[in-house]
Formats: sequence, C-alpha cells, structure tokens
Amino acid sequence: MLPFMVRKRSEEPLREREMIEIIQRRLEVMPRMPVPFGDDVSACDLGSGRVAVLKTDMLVDRTDVPKGMSLWQATRKAVVMNVSDFAAKGVQPLALLVSLGMPASVSRKEVEEIADGLNAGAREYGAYVVGGDTGEASDVVISVSVFGVAVKDKLMLRSGARPGDVVAVTGFFGRSSAGLKILLGKFDVEPKIRRGLVESALMPHARLREGLALGKSGAVSASIDSSDGLAWSLHEIARASNVGFLLDMLPVAEEVQEFAKANRLDALDLTLYGGEEYELVVTIKPRLYKKAEEAIAKAGGALIRIGSVTAEKDMVLMTEGKKCVIEPRGYEHFKDIH
Amino acid sequence: MLPFMVRKRSEEPLREREMIEIIQRRLEVMPRMPVPFGDDVSACDLGSGRVAVLKTDMLVDRTDVPKGMSLWQATRKAVVMNVSDFAAKGVQPLALLVSLGMPASVSRKEVEEIADGLNAGAREYGAYVVGGDTGEASDVVISVSVFGVAVKDKLMLRSGARPGDVVAVTGFFGRSSAGLKILLGKFDVEPKIRRGLVESALMPHARLREGLALGKSGAVSASIDSSDGLAWSLHEIARASNVGFLLDMLPVAEEVQEFAKANRLDALDLTLYGGEEYELVVTIKPRLYKKAEEAIAKAGGALIRIGSVTAEKDMVLMTEGKKCVIEPRGYEHFKDIH
Repeated sequence: MLPFMVRKRSEEPLREREMIEIIQRRLEVMPRMPVPFGDDVSACDLGSGRVAVLKTDMLVDRTDVPKGMSLWQATRKAVVMNVSDFAAKGVQPLALLVSLGMPASVSRKEVEEIADGLNAGAREYGAYVVGGDTGEASDVVISVSVFGVAVKDKLMLRSGARPGDVVAVTGFFGRSSAGLKILLGKFDVEPKIRRGLVESALMPHARLREGLALGKSGAVSASIDSSDGLAWSLHEIARASNVGFLLDMLPVAEEVQEFAKANRLDALDLTLYGGEEYELVVTIKPRLYKKAEEAIAKAGGALIRIGSVTAEKDMVLMTEGKKCVIEPRGYEHFKDIH
Repeated sequence: MLPFMVRKRSEEPLREREMIEIIQRRLEVMPRMPVPFGDDVSACDLGSGRVAVLKTDMLVDRTDVPKGMSLWQATRKAVVMNVSDFAAKGVQPLALLVSLGMPASVSRKEVEEIADGLNAGAREYGAYVVGGDTGEASDVVISVSVFGVAVKDKLMLRSGARPGDVVAVTGFFGRSSAGLKILLGKFDVEPKIRRGLVESALMPHARLREGLALGKSGAVSASIDSSDGLAWSLHEIARASNVGFLLDMLPVAEEVQEFAKANRLDALDLTLYGGEEYELVVTIKPRLYKKAEEAIAKAGGALIRIGSVTAEKDMVLMTEGKKCVIEPRGYEHFKDIH
C-alpha cells in the first residue's frame, strides 16, 4: 500500500519541467552558487578557483526502459546519462554513488547484472562506483550521482552563447529515436541498418573525450548534451544565453534518412525532436573554431557545424531555401515505451 | 507494466545486506579509496590531505514511511538520515542533490510539500539543495545525495576502535521505536509521553553539532550513527575494528522505560534493536575522554559512557550482575509499517 498519492485526481497531471520549477522556486539558493539551477550539473565551491561538480539523474524501468533493453543495459545507461552531462560541461567524472530501488522479488542474478552494468558504465569513462544504498520499491529505480572536480572558469555552461558564435554538434542525430521506434514497432528496415539503429538506443555513448577536449580548448561559449533532443537543447542554450539560432544544416544521420524514407516518417522530426541522444551541442567563438576542431579531432571525434547564434530570439532552420521554425519540444520521458 | 522482475520467484527474497555484498564484490575498487566500502560515507581524494565526502541514501514511502508521517516530514527525514551519516564522520554537509520519483498523480501541493521538506532539512543543518532530478515512479522515492569536504586524517571511521577505549553515545535510545509502535498500534501511554515519543519517530534530528565537535576534538577512535539500531551499530564497529564490547550501562530513555512497563514490552529490546535512531555511537581514547566531553558540552550536547572496548570479540551487556549477549540484529526496513 502506498501511503501517499493513491487517489485519482481531477487536476491535470504535472509535467516534469513544471515540477522542477515548483521545487526550485521553494528552495533557498546557496550564496555564490557556482552553477545556476537548471544547468546540466550543479557545483559547490572548493576554494582556489576549483569547484566540486555534482549531478544526479534517475532511471525508472517503467518509464525509461524500452522493451528489448536488458537490465545490464538499463543500468549502464543510467550511468551514461549522468556521464553525458559531465561531458557537456567538460568535466571528468571521478566517483559515482548509486541508490537502487528494487522489487522484493529481485533475484541474485539480477542484482549481479545491475552491479555489472554499473561497473561497466563507470569504468568505460574512467570513474568508479564508491558507494550507494539499496531499498525495496515497486519499480526498478536506479539513481546515479556523480562527483568530479573542475576549474570554475573552465566549466562550459549553457549561458555563454553570443551572437555570431558558431553552432556545432559532435555527431549526427536521429539514430536513437529510429532505434527506439524499431524496438517498439514494425518497421521496414534492412538488417544491417537495423542493428546500428537499435544499438544506438540500447548502448548509448557519452561524448566524454570530446567534451574534455572542448573544455580544455577554451573555445566553447556554451554547451549542453542532447538527452532531451536537439531542438530542446538548442532552446535551452537560447534561453540561458538570451540569444536565437539560425541553423543552415540539419545533422541527420544517413541511416536515419534511409529509415525515414522507407517508412514514410519525417527525418527532420526524428533528428530534431527525438530524445535520448548523447551528442554535445555547443557554441564556439568563431576565431577559435579551428582550435576546437583540432582539439576534438585529436580526441578522436569530430565537430559538425550546423549554424550560428543570432541576436534575434528566433529559432530557425533554413535548408534548400526553405525556412522552418524549430519548436521548443522534446522528450520528457518515454511515456509509451511498452 | 514493469519490464523487469515481474515474476514471482521460488528463491528466498534477498536481504538488503546480501544485495549490497553482491554488488560490492562485483565492483572494481577505486585505487587508494580514502574510505572503504561499508562505512557510513564514501570519499574521493581532493589532494593536499583533503577528501570529498559523498553519501546517498534513499527513502521509499512504501517501506520507510510509517502511517501518521506527513509528506513534508518524510522528505525532511530523507535529508536527516543522510546528514546523520555525515555527523557520525564529523563532516559538515554542504550541498545536496535530490532524485525524486513520484506517481503521475502527484499534485502541485504535494510537490510543494516535498520541496519545503527538502529545504527545511537542508537548512536545518547549514546545507543547500543545489540540484536534482524528477521522474515518474509507482512509489514516492526520495534519493538524497550529500557532498562535503573533510581533512582525510580527521574523518571518524568505523575501524579505529582499540581495546581499552571508552564506548559512549550522544543520547538515550528507544524513543523512535516506541514512537513508531504508538503510531502503528494501540498502546497504553500518557498523552505527555506519547507526544515526545511520536515526535522522535516523525521528526528525527541528526547529531551534527555533536559530530562536528567530536571530529575536531581528535579524541574519537571510531564512530557510526545508529539508524539501524544500537546493537547493529556496535556490531558494525566491532567488525570493522576487530574488537568486542563490554557494556555496563543500557542507555534507555526514561519515557521508554515507562512506556515499556505500561505495555509489558521489553525496554532492552526497544533500546538495543529498534531502528531509525539518530544518536552517534563512538569509541574514545581514555586519556582524551574528558576532552571529548568538554567539546560536546560546548556544542550543546552530552556524552553518555556505556562501556568499553575489549580485545575479546564478545558483545556483552552486564547490568545489575546480569550478563546478556547483544545480538547482531537491527532494522533493515520497516517491513510492517502500514
């Protein structure tokens, strides 16, 4: 029996972002908080120009895990989504804590799978799990907290984009959305393409090497990851930096183009409004663009230039002479993943 | 629908401590980890003799919240139980992150109550909530992570108790257990006593000032909080320090004595094996006992001497000529709180 919130309500259900706003408004704000509420990570001053970087992100199987994803993959993903936020800020994750809620029926083998997924995710990015807590819950709940240390002035926040800056991303978009669709429905797709797309949804990778390289380069004016989709990420930078964007290129992955065509889906939709992408979306000072490109190439990655920052607050994509407004929407949760 | 763990199983359900052991065995251990697995907090080296102190502890309404406790109280308690672990290590909590899982039916008023409970708990102990995450879950899940900074050599671990050390606690025990019993059943209890006992269960307080004072005094050889009960805490220090205990005094609260007598309950049971207590259990070098006492008095608290550390691994209580073995049991969860 749940002691709280068992009644059906007449009010409209609250959206996740509304909840976060309600909570933030009622919290006393830490004086001289190094990173404002609403950025990808939080921070706490360590003195001598350094900050502790902190992040927590929770995965709940009922809403965040598509069918076809194993428990090991889900647990690893819970780590990756946290690491991705560190990547966007240019910070190395050092230590992880994990709170696990599990049904009483959990088996030894399942607990082992969870432990292995946690360890795999952490070690993949050079971090270690150093502690945690377990408890009984109706769902599988995996709440990961990450700790790292950064030089305060080197942190890439969402708020530094200036008109004239170049907008770039670390990879092509749409694979995860397409992969998720394939996992959940019947789509016409070649086995070769299918495998790659499904893999994107089940085994996401955080762009940590790229983020660390960009952070060191000093070329980035604003940065965010794209776990809520490309459109949402752009709108978040726009809001935090008080600017607009003019994109002249849609970074759609080739396989996504093919998949969309074969299934009469809109590739633009998959690219802009899909969620659970883990590319970085950054703005770069034009005179330092080459430096950023070289830094990321050295780290084994690539920068794809997709447009520029504008003083006007519009959010527009112009391709092949067609103008299209980029809407502020994205995934909040997989509401319909089962 | 839950994607994982929906089947009824034939195996015996795993106990929380078994799960933690399974997980720890499968994790790669951070080299030179400043605090071993299994202590109250985790840590990560910051250089120059300092460590980042990290802790996460999760509250799930279905198993951790007794009837009669409000959502505000439950949320505040989720903070207090984390702060209590910091208190036991002598570390000031600075910043909190919170992962909230809530049913879709949650109302605006309930979210406000949660926010206020978080803020109240944090501010009560000089900390701030600096970030978090929300998601949909079947239960109300409140996972709090705490960050602080400590001088590594000043951390009070579980492992430093030596034969001859004095065992002391920061207050009398049994109030929370008695309060919980009153909340859940029909007991014979005077209104005046009832109020205090129920308050202990609903509004626990972490002994942070006491813990910080003890930490600074340098007199403590081992320390732990008592959220799993006094007996369990003693056994944990014994295990980590490879020692035993001879107690010559049972620190039972006067009201608990009365409550037990009126209801034919065993006061010893309530004192040793009740859970959700937030007193500190410490061992102190004998020649520094006075120093510890003075430090804690200055902080507004008190030390109650209950026995001494022994080289023999037994765990014994000797009062009024009677000898009684203290068993290694305590609350893992409120399995039957509703």
